[in-house]
Amino acid sequence: MTGDFAGEPAGVLAIGDHKFTSRLVIGTGGAANLDILERALTASGTELTTVAMRRADLGSGSGVLDLLRRLGIALLPNTAGCRTAAEAVLTAQLAREALGTDLVKLEVHADDRTLLPDPIETVDAAQQLADEGFTVLAYTNDDPVTALRLEEAGCAAVMPLGSPIGTGLGIRNPHNIELIVARASVPVILDAGIGTASDATLAMELGCDAVLLSTAVTRAQDPERMAAAMRAGVTAGRLAREAGRIPQRFWAQASSPPR
Amino acid sequence: MTGDFAGEPAGVLAIGDHKFTSRLVIGTGGAANLDILERALTASGTELTTVAMRRADLGSGSGVLDLLRRLGIALLPNTAGCRTAAEAVLTAQLAREALGTDLVKLEVHADDRTLLPDPIETVDAAQQLADEGFTVLAYTNDDPVTALRLEEAGCAAVMPLGSPIGTGLGIRNPHNIELIVARASVPVILDAGIGTASDATLAMELGCDAVLLSTAVTRAQDPERMAAAMRAGVTAGRLAREAGRIPQRFWAQASSPPR
Amino acid sequence: MTGDFAGEPAGVLAIGDHKFTSRLVIGTGGAANLDILERALTASGTELTTVAMRRADLGSGSGVLDLLRRLGIALLPNTAGCRTAAEAVLTAQLAREALGTDLVKLEVHADDRTLLPDPIETVDAAQQLADEGFTVLAYTNDDPVTALRLEEAGCAAVMPLGSPIGTGLGIRNPHNIELIVARASVPVILDAGIGTASDATLAMELGCDAVLLSTAVTRAQDPERMAAAMRAGVTAGRLAREAGRIPQRFWAQASSPPR
Amino acid sequence: MTGDFAGEPAGVLAIGDHKFTSRLVIGTGGAANLDILERALTASGTELTTVAMRRADLGSGSGVLDLLRRLGIALLPNTAGCRTAAEAVLTAQLAREALGTDLVKLEVHADDRTLLPDPIETVDAAQQLADEGFTVLAYTNDDPVTALRLEEAGCAAVMPLGSPIGTGLGIRNPHNIELIVARASVPVILDAGIGTASDATLAMELGCDAVLLSTAVTRAQDPERMAAAMRAGVTAGRLAREAGRIPQRFWAQASSPPR
Repeated sequence: MTGDFAGEPAGVLAIGDHKFTSRLVIGTGGAANLDILERALTASGTELTTVAMRRADLGSGSGVLDLLRRLGIALLPNTAGCRTAAEAVLTAQLAREALGTDLVKLEVHADDRTLLPDPIETVDAAQQLADEGFTVLAYTNDDPVTALRLEEAGCAAVMPLGSPIGTGLGIRNPHNIELIVARASVPVILDAGIGTASDATLAMELGCDAVLLSTAVTRAQDPERMAAAMRAGVTAGRLAREAGRIPQRFWAQASSPPR
Repeated sequence: MTGDFAGEPAGVLAIGDHKFTSRLVIGTGGAANLDILERALTASGTELTTVAMRRADLGSGSGVLDLLRRLGIALLPNTAGCRTAAEAVLTAQLAREALGTDLVKLEVHADDRTLLPDPIETVDAAQQLADEGFTVLAYTNDDPVTALRLEEAGCAAVMPLGSPIGTGLGIRNPHNIELIVARASVPVILDAGIGTASDATLAMELGCDAVLLSTAVTRAQDPERMAAAMRAGVTAGRLAREAGRIPQRFWAQASSPPR
Repeated sequence: MTGDFAGEPAGVLAIGDHKFTSRLVIGTGGAANLDILERALTASGTELTTVAMRRADLGSGSGVLDLLRRLGIALLPNTAGCRTAAEAVLTAQLAREALGTDLVKLEVHADDRTLLPDPIETVDAAQQLADEGFTVLAYTNDDPVTALRLEEAGCAAVMPLGSPIGTGLGIRNPHNIELIVARASVPVILDAGIGTASDATLAMELGCDAVLLSTAVTRAQDPERMAAAMRAGVTAGRLAREAGRIPQRFWAQASSPPR
Repeated sequence: MTGDFAGEPAGVLAIGDHKFTSRLVIGTGGAANLDILERALTASGTELTTVAMRRADLGSGSGVLDLLRRLGIALLPNTAGCRTAAEAVLTAQLAREALGTDLVKLEVHADDRTLLPDPIETVDAAQQLADEGFTVLAYTNDDPVTALRLEEAGCAAVMPLGSPIGTGLGIRNPHNIELIVARASVPVILDAGIGTASDATLAMELGCDAVLLSTAVTRAQDPERMAAAMRAGVTAGRLAREAGRIPQRFWAQASSPPR
């Protein structure tokens, strides 16, 4: 450990050519108004925030885009609402043109009730977008095989869910996240299902490189405070992963005094 | 929420007449040497640290006591190693005389294999010590009834375990911790079993007022970094508790753009 | 394994001088009427059923007692509703006189909201009752130390809870049940908290000798069918424990064809 | 509930035109020898057993096939070991010709380390096989979207995993299994990951129609006894599902005597 340790995790998050110090990506959905959103974004320390291309966000005079530019936060347009690879590719192309960024969060939802990603359409779209030079971050279920397929298709990051969008059920299957992390050579960003800070901490302890969340912050009773909680939670999990935890034991073990 | 929010939890931890800003109590056991301990204590931000009266800690020239005094950290002598109420009371009395503090962490271990507290001896000792004017923080199992009995006996704080000492198994029974918190009128400090930062975050989210841990930090591969992780984890959990999390749902729920 | 294996677990459940083939103990509380209770008891295969001494069960013409006698099911009077050792001892004495059995299920509830056992009063009463020649089955929390204390006090069986009475939360802390089983030399009967059949199966897999439950059956939508489910669940868990399960692995392992 | 209730679940398992009373499907892999396999199959009560087409099972004088025919157990050839849709389709065609059954368990493994199914190749193969008139039971991950896609492709049953093959990790994500069951209109058979009887019980309680397992039985210390455990566990879970369990509560609730 270097002598200048000051309680912050080492390294940066590199997604394609983009580099970030913060490991918390925020979604803007669910915020009651722009003032609350601004305070939450600031408290979170985020440097990358996702906006839905198919919603009203991008209308003339969109407050969200103005806000993000004013705060100096990078835009991550997403394709939420798309149901097919073709729709998602078209939406990504429009976003690149409109927003001037090669970053895209690829989301192809199979239906409205689960909002789960469609693995076949997602892999298809990922391949096309990567071939067109996009820096693709792909939302996926927590299947380790699909995560590898997305990486092979050229994704710059894979974003497995913890649980379905908006459920707040946290990470339902930590074993799958560990399997994904063990075999990934691109960043793994835990996306969807985060409900509270310990979920974010656990995601980082499992080896994720970052966490994306939206309504856990925007719909908390106090969004600004929850944003600060998530920021601290991600830091805690990253530090703990780096620090190397003690093993788990069945029987107790006494400590002993330092010499 | 006040306008001066800066990402820190509100309020102080009051144990009897003693007040602390930090909500992380550290045990010194298990540290490889005093230098590592010092760096870990500093990184943790702790203001209260427990030392075992029945170990070599208090011998002439005890480095640990000198270290804690130099760092300005309050001493919390503990009675670890005691098997009966009588032993624990005597040990506490010696500690008060030797260290000049009315604080005592009461521990009566039933046996060496589980290091679990003996509830009957603990309640007995707690009563005696409270009657003698000690500020008693009592280590207990996670039984909600025993926690209430300790409070009735005059304890200034109750310290339920997450799992047996040194196991790193985290909080095995969150339901019991919630039951204890729901009925306690003194601070609840999660003690024993913490293995990694998300355990500490969860403890605070469940409503605990503070967390005590030792070997999770001192025996981590990088104790200083794990101490920083625990500090952030406690902050994250406290903020999340204050912020009010979203409810859990079975089906997904889409977010929507801010207006 | 003997050649006459027929899908039934080996051995009998011996509690003091009493022996049972069934490992499912049923409580009568919560049944809508005696007819439903009879069908549920029959479907469960139980040979031992607990009745509350402090309720109306024992009034003249008590249908429950008549029913149990008719079905040839042994009576296990319990002290539910008692708050002190003295009350519990008196209730047990009355039960012995009225029902002609030395069996008693000792329950001392600390309060109505949790119905959790009071460990101090329970150990006190257990000592007195064992000294008076009762065959004591003691309801306890899942604290391994209290379980040992009850055994030392002379109990013929210890009955740790899975979770509070009537919650249906199952076994909240399997680790504690394993610790209790590992050190007990009297039968361990999982009591309270069972909600469904897999809870009973798990209890037996953890090494419990039997399971006690009431409202999981009596308040199920179809009590008779749930009683049959519990009977099968206990058998499944007992057989699985005896059979020796495969270890858990992180990575997959293919099977291979038999030779 | 009908008057002739005798502790057995109602109804039959219908897969395409095939009907079964047993809800336990056994895989033959991992058995030490044919004698042990025979005893385990008999104890399990299975009526449907899967054999690997790509292994030595089908050589001249295959003991496994002879055994299954002698025991009157239906054959379910599987495509384990196949890596592509094309391989799986060819293997299924060979199986149909060799064994004279339209039943096929479709498995396309993505790699040897996880043995996880490849969702894209599996859906592709399922479509082809269904079009050719096979009765397809498709092994899949626990993704609810992929399960629906397989049903749309014409599968007669979907077989989500609990956890990777041979791990014995049980059902890692009960929420996903519940989502699959809630939307399926074909039978759901829990496949892979079962380690012990309570896993099988839970699978049925979550609403699965049957359970498939291999090494949990064949590699248990006593395969015959574990087979009996699994049989009882499946029965327990099915009955409990039908019986309608009590809800879970945070606070305790006393039972009351029957009237």
